[in-house]
Amino acid sequence: MTTTALPRTTNAWLITNVRRTDGARVDVSIADGRIAAIGPNLAREPGVAIEDGAGALLLPGFVEGHTHLDKSHWGMPWYRNEVGPKLTDRIENERRWRAQSGHDAGAQSLALARAFVLAGTTRLRTHVDIDTEAGLRHLDGVLATRATLRDVLDLQIVAFPQSGLLGRPGTDALLDRALSAGADVLGALDPALIDGDPVASLDLTFGLAQRHQKPIDIHLHEPGEIGAFTLGLLLDRVAALGMQGQVVVSHAFCLGALPERERDALLTRLADLRVALLTTAPPSTPVPPLKTCIEKGVTLFGGNDGIRDTWTPYGSPDMLERAMLIAMRYNLRRDDDLALALDCVSGTAARGCGFTHYGLHAGARADLVLVDADTLAQAIVARPPRKLVVANGRIVARNGAHAQHRPAD
Amino acid sequence: MTTTALPRTTNAWLITNVRRTDGARVDVSIADGRIAAIGPNLAREPGVAIEDGAGALLLPGFVEGHTHLDKSHWGMPWYRNEVGPKLTDRIENERRWRAQSGHDAGAQSLALARAFVLAGTTRLRTHVDIDTEAGLRHLDGVLATRATLRDVLDLQIVAFPQSGLLGRPGTDALLDRALSAGADVLGALDPALIDGDPVASLDLTFGLAQRHQKPIDIHLHEPGEIGAFTLGLLLDRVAALGMQGQVVVSHAFCLGALPERERDALLTRLADLRVALLTTAPPSTPVPPLKTCIEKGVTLFGGNDGIRDTWTPYGSPDMLERAMLIAMRYNLRRDDDLALALDCVSGTAARGCGFTHYGLHAGARADLVLVDADTLAQAIVARPPRKLVVANGRIVARNGAHAQHRPAD
Repeated sequence: MTTTALPRTTNAWLITNVRRTDGARVDVSIADGRIAAIGPNLAREPGVAIEDGAGALLLPGFVEGHTHLDKSHWGMPWYRNEVGPKLTDRIENERRWRAQSGHDAGAQSLALARAFVLAGTTRLRTHVDIDTEAGLRHLDGVLATRATLRDVLDLQIVAFPQSGLLGRPGTDALLDRALSAGADVLGALDPALIDGDPVASLDLTFGLAQRHQKPIDIHLHEPGEIGAFTLGLLLDRVAALGMQGQVVVSHAFCLGALPERERDALLTRLADLRVALLTTAPPSTPVPPLKTCIEKGVTLFGGNDGIRDTWTPYGSPDMLERAMLIAMRYNLRRDDDLALALDCVSGTAARGCGFTHYGLHAGARADLVLVDADTLAQAIVARPPRKLVVANGRIVARNGAHAQHRPAD
Repeated sequence: MTTTALPRTTNAWLITNVRRTDGARVDVSIADGRIAAIGPNLAREPGVAIEDGAGALLLPGFVEGHTHLDKSHWGMPWYRNEVGPKLTDRIENERRWRAQSGHDAGAQSLALARAFVLAGTTRLRTHVDIDTEAGLRHLDGVLATRATLRDVLDLQIVAFPQSGLLGRPGTDALLDRALSAGADVLGALDPALIDGDPVASLDLTFGLAQRHQKPIDIHLHEPGEIGAFTLGLLLDRVAALGMQGQVVVSHAFCLGALPERERDALLTRLADLRVALLTTAPPSTPVPPLKTCIEKGVTLFGGNDGIRDTWTPYGSPDMLERAMLIAMRYNLRRDDDLALALDCVSGTAARGCGFTHYGLHAGARADLVLVDADTLAQAIVARPPRKLVVANGRIVARNGAHAQHRPAD
């Protein structure tokens, strides 16, 4: 429901001779931006352009479930990180930097979004900083990027109060304006440990979301018992307000460190209320348990978080790298387990974010990636250059470089 | 003392215009395989070949502190991992595979070692499987690889009883033969949880090492209190036998999970006895604390462990990637902290393994890597293709491809 409707852009064409991850050789026929059919030996209609897949592995376009396009230094001179270790150090350092650096959120979000497309991402949720100093400047930049890339990238914008909601009066009014101005989702941040008043903070957030009929994506870094407490308050509001299927809890570190019984009770509530979880799979922090989430029916999907910004030097627009880091974090080694990691940045992420018409089936939007790899597991660990990226039915990249749509047999 | 003496291979030449990680612009003059001088504006003697560094970042050749060249499927069709989750599942699966697959440890170790060189590694410690079924077959293969690459790669071989030492009679005799046949280091594996008798296992290991006057590198996966117990027994023997500076403990997961006081007491003993630690920085397992090790004077260095073998699909011959994973595991974000991660795969690893004449100073062996990066931190997170790799004073790779030594202005 939060997806951007992309225009129909292409006539019929055919990709031949690709391998699904189950090994089956198939062709993919594409028309009007959708997958018309997928299967072995599809009919080759006269006049239909053909792209020879040459036996490449067929993957769906990737989904970035949580990043911050607006604050990246991607492609710029290196930002020297001399920031202190606390969450508040990072927030305050960034606010100073944002005021002084002349950072261009429009140009930077465009540069990084294009790098995502090049590496095969066709759907992306980005959290955009909104605060009383920057106002809606970053939002304006990312809205421009969304408009520029609307034919190739389905971009969801979260209006994110990076400096907190309660501590800086006027932030709620800015979020309200952001949601009116085109933000798809309302963000939030640590209602107890940043805002200092979890009930007031959550009530304000849910009230705003309800008024705009928009979903919520909350950054919940709060650890252990305090995180569990906040999460419980959040789930109460989801139930009371009927916002099932409309809320994502990002990070949710607390679910990696609670006693099993307490954790499982929360997972059961998350599943019942269809509240999804997002993890970046940080190796130095507890994370929600992937396989237990799957067993209990909790949607757990993946993302980078920030990429080369004042918070972190890490991150990459290559979602196969994020899949690898997720797989390593959960110690997935078997080939069938590695498929779970790809799910985190493809089908499960699309479900978590509410991206529609997604997947490798007739009727889905034609968002495809071809790579030279024997298997899905090899694609994840070797991360070969993308042989072909198709977005919205059009070729947008070939052999790791941006390309015009021109199928070539 | 376990390093292989590499032959002198080159006459004098000069690399101009490179940047040290502190930003200083320098030239590097190289003669007879060594760095003759390093500093700004070195004299350009007539007839001395010149390579223009074009402002690239200068790094030392990398050091892989712990891998398993002999068991990798590098460059082969994908190995489908369907192995169970326990350590013994992995050991038994591999032993079956080793007997049945026709795996060529010589060809595979050569392929992977060449990939390491291409990515800038010039010193490498590899653990080679020795057991009563494979005998010395893997050792023979890796000895051949060492001979083939002796001009470009300083390769230490650990004779490693992958199936345990006590459980399979005859293993000690094979290790004895391996040490006589050219293995540099004696390996060992979980004296309590695999061998079932930590005292007998350690006594046999230390006795063998003493007889051959060779150092020890033990894989200690044993967690928490049992790992601490085994580590204590090991340290007793280092002290009693005067093997200070001769022992590496690989993995040492126990040091990531003990109460601080107990952990710190062990770290103090490790520092006093100059016993080094090796970590692969696994994101799903407790690891020894990097900064505390540095504070206490414990040498903690890094490595991949296996690369694309029956144990794991992960790993890469690019030690900048390992540095990144180490940095992420320890949540290092500041530029000065990321330098610690590079140390783990360069200077500290050379010290831990006993590789001599190492570093970026006059007199050291000329093992150099040039990359296009603003800073060391960027080199680690972006891992650009190696612009130039110099091993033992000779150019061995250029722009990510193997190359002949031919300096070009």
